[in-house]
Amino acid sequence: MLGALGAASLPGSAARSLGGARGTDPLREIGPAGASSPRAATGAELDDALRVDGARINGHLAQLAEFGKNPQGGVSRMAYSEADRRGREWLMGVYRDAGLAPRIDTAGNIVARIDGTDPSLKPLVIGSHIDSVPEGGNFDGDVGTLSSVEVGRTLLANQRRLRHPLDIVCWQNEEGGLVGSRIVSGEFPMAELEQKGTAGKTLREGIAFIGGDVNRFAESRRAKGDIAAYVELHIEQGGTLEARKLDIGVVEGIVGLYHWDVEVTGFANHAGTTAMRGRRDALLAASRFIEMVNHVVTSEPGRQVGTVGHIEAYPGAPNVIPGRVRLTLELRDLAVANVERLYARIVKEATVIGQRSGTRFAFTPTVSHLPALSDPRIREFIRRSAQSLGLSTLTLPSGAGHDAQSMARLGPMGMIFIPSVGGISHAPTEFSKAADITNGANVLLRTVLALDGWGA
Amino acid sequence: MLGALGAASLPGSAARSLGGARGTDPLREIGPAGASSPRAATGAELDDALRVDGARINGHLAQLAEFGKNPQGGVSRMAYSEADRRGREWLMGVYRDAGLAPRIDTAGNIVARIDGTDPSLKPLVIGSHIDSVPEGGNFDGDVGTLSSVEVGRTLLANQRRLRHPLDIVCWQNEEGGLVGSRIVSGEFPMAELEQKGTAGKTLREGIAFIGGDVNRFAESRRAKGDIAAYVELHIEQGGTLEARKLDIGVVEGIVGLYHWDVEVTGFANHAGTTAMRGRRDALLAASRFIEMVNHVVTSEPGRQVGTVGHIEAYPGAPNVIPGRVRLTLELRDLAVANVERLYARIVKEATVIGQRSGTRFAFTPTVSHLPALSDPRIREFIRRSAQSLGLSTLTLPSGAGHDAQSMARLGPMGMIFIPSVGGISHAPTEFSKAADITNGANVLLRTVLALDGWGA
Repeated sequence: MLGALGAASLPGSAARSLGGARGTDPLREIGPAGASSPRAATGAELDDALRVDGARINGHLAQLAEFGKNPQGGVSRMAYSEADRRGREWLMGVYRDAGLAPRIDTAGNIVARIDGTDPSLKPLVIGSHIDSVPEGGNFDGDVGTLSSVEVGRTLLANQRRLRHPLDIVCWQNEEGGLVGSRIVSGEFPMAELEQKGTAGKTLREGIAFIGGDVNRFAESRRAKGDIAAYVELHIEQGGTLEARKLDIGVVEGIVGLYHWDVEVTGFANHAGTTAMRGRRDALLAASRFIEMVNHVVTSEPGRQVGTVGHIEAYPGAPNVIPGRVRLTLELRDLAVANVERLYARIVKEATVIGQRSGTRFAFTPTVSHLPALSDPRIREFIRRSAQSLGLSTLTLPSGAGHDAQSMARLGPMGMIFIPSVGGISHAPTEFSKAADITNGANVLLRTVLALDGWGA
Repeated sequence: MLGALGAASLPGSAARSLGGARGTDPLREIGPAGASSPRAATGAELDDALRVDGARINGHLAQLAEFGKNPQGGVSRMAYSEADRRGREWLMGVYRDAGLAPRIDTAGNIVARIDGTDPSLKPLVIGSHIDSVPEGGNFDGDVGTLSSVEVGRTLLANQRRLRHPLDIVCWQNEEGGLVGSRIVSGEFPMAELEQKGTAGKTLREGIAFIGGDVNRFAESRRAKGDIAAYVELHIEQGGTLEARKLDIGVVEGIVGLYHWDVEVTGFANHAGTTAMRGRRDALLAASRFIEMVNHVVTSEPGRQVGTVGHIEAYPGAPNVIPGRVRLTLELRDLAVANVERLYARIVKEATVIGQRSGTRFAFTPTVSHLPALSDPRIREFIRRSAQSLGLSTLTLPSGAGHDAQSMARLGPMGMIFIPSVGGISHAPTEFSKAADITNGANVLLRTVLALDGWGA
């Protein structure tokens, strides 16, 4: 699929008119500018002048924040909650206001298509999600979702027809594990339907609740090669862009994510009668493990991260030495080989901890998401689009998972990041500035225009 | 109260006839032998020959093990469970078989009295408990309870009248915090009635369920000085006696027990997007704390113990850096000053951990049980009783709490330990040998006879 996508060009003369690099067309490095592109018919001047209405996006963000609003700020709009359902209904109203005709696909995603001029072309797809984690923030998936609708509205309002169909998607239940996008990409195992989500419903119940149809998932499935490209705008959720005072992140890929359940077995005994020397304390061993994981992950250069986020000690009474501890281990990196090497070191060192403390460590892999690299040519479109708008960029990995990684299974994928203030996300204090949101949406618009010229 | 108890003597010539130290009466060191004691009237020969029926005790232990029996061994006979109620009914049958007349006091304890010959004397009290922790063993409180009933039966069957009344008690809900004995000692705050126990009932519901009366606790209360002495036989629950191949433990006291809730506050953030360097990981800090507690407690000589038995990390998801951890800290020692010194060191080192990891530690004291020292003269009675039976002894602290510590508030207290195989307790594999149980019961019998002569 990726090999079929060769030519690339910026829409019109955007790079020259807005960017800093006058006199050169950097995309020539990638492919010849499509002089005969249908864009030419709409006029390069129009494309150069096209802008989203940033005030409208930010106003919509404030309205969406009412659905599942928490007193401490932010929202709890977990997938399949009443807040989620009402938020989605409101969002479909925003689609319609924009002149779009949204429908709910059998996977439960909200989708609207703007037809292109060339019926032979596969769709360009843009979008994000509006479900949140419990006690989450108001920007996470909301920025990309509302900006995507705004991009569609801007094209329609300016009668800027694309060659490709443009699908504008709000994926359902991103936070619960990219559920809606994995149904579309064919990566969703039906057994997961019985799992319970954070709103208390099983996925089976939840998908019905929001209007999907678990018996007709096949109708929403797309095969590899069924999309021309996927682009998602999202907040960074980390602090790198803000710390370096940069406007736009060009995502080089979504890191691989690996989870293990780790069980530490010692021997539960009476905390009063068992001398310190005779103990086989599973929590003490687990503590040494957590410290060791931190040491191993930080002992090598690179952007890899390792986290123990969940822990339970059994029996869990203040007056009983824990005989068993269950905890989770998570490792993320763009390179699978790095993760494998770090994991091997961790297992080896855990064995030593176990030998010294009379405990045993057992590892069970639970989640394994391969890294999803973005398409280098889409990265280049995003970078040049940003530059053409006078915005600074940084290429960086996404440490978080996104629906974009499901879409990367189907075709070339790209992601645009905007700064997160303080690097905070999944929390009430999650925040992105209105100007950054507007910038991100304009980069998305311009990237879509560029992609539409791609291969023309 | 303690000052009023001066004279002490072994029953009859037991030390000479059974012990190793012929020709000396070691109790002469404590007080003059009571030549005019009423024991003389019953005949020293009878006392020397008196023995419990060890086979009966061990048979009763096997029968009691049926109530709340678990497939993996041991019992779950939590206070106020159906198994507890049925076990108590069965036990009252054993009392009656022994010729005792059990009643349930308003506190919910089972009590039977054998009247003494001297109505002016306060009662001697013996007993233990039969409730268990969830997934507990078959020996913990059961050994002392059934042995106490057997001691009463032995006295009755041999028409061996004591001078003192003898109260034989099965305390209710020892495992839930010495509930029955604290009601009697006046240490039970009524607010605790609303707390839920391990069987799912509040103490208020549970006490009614087993036949107590929360409106009439005053009738079961005893004041300081209301008992002549309290003696409890119990399994050691630690491995010291077994490791040293000794028969009987003479408990020097029950260690003080102190609990704190410790809250570690960091900052919750996305585990994928937050670089390792920028983290304020409360679980990593908590792990360093647990390791440090172990180091502090083991860095000084002595028998002090320190335990972190419970831990929770919030929000507790595999993919979120924990922003907050709650854990429990327990310290035990016979000397309050030692606990205070260890705690001060722990707080100081926690502050350093906090400073280095961007976290804060807060300590809230939750449980504080002062050490309860046994009476040195009762210790001597137990030691000589054991020696008179040819049994080896060791003086040691009790690391576990017992109803004996409530009774120590009312009068002189002593405890007899027998070996726990492997030092295991509160577990299905808890085990004490039949011969050790019989030995313990005989030491209890002989100690009661000695106490009855006390001060005569």
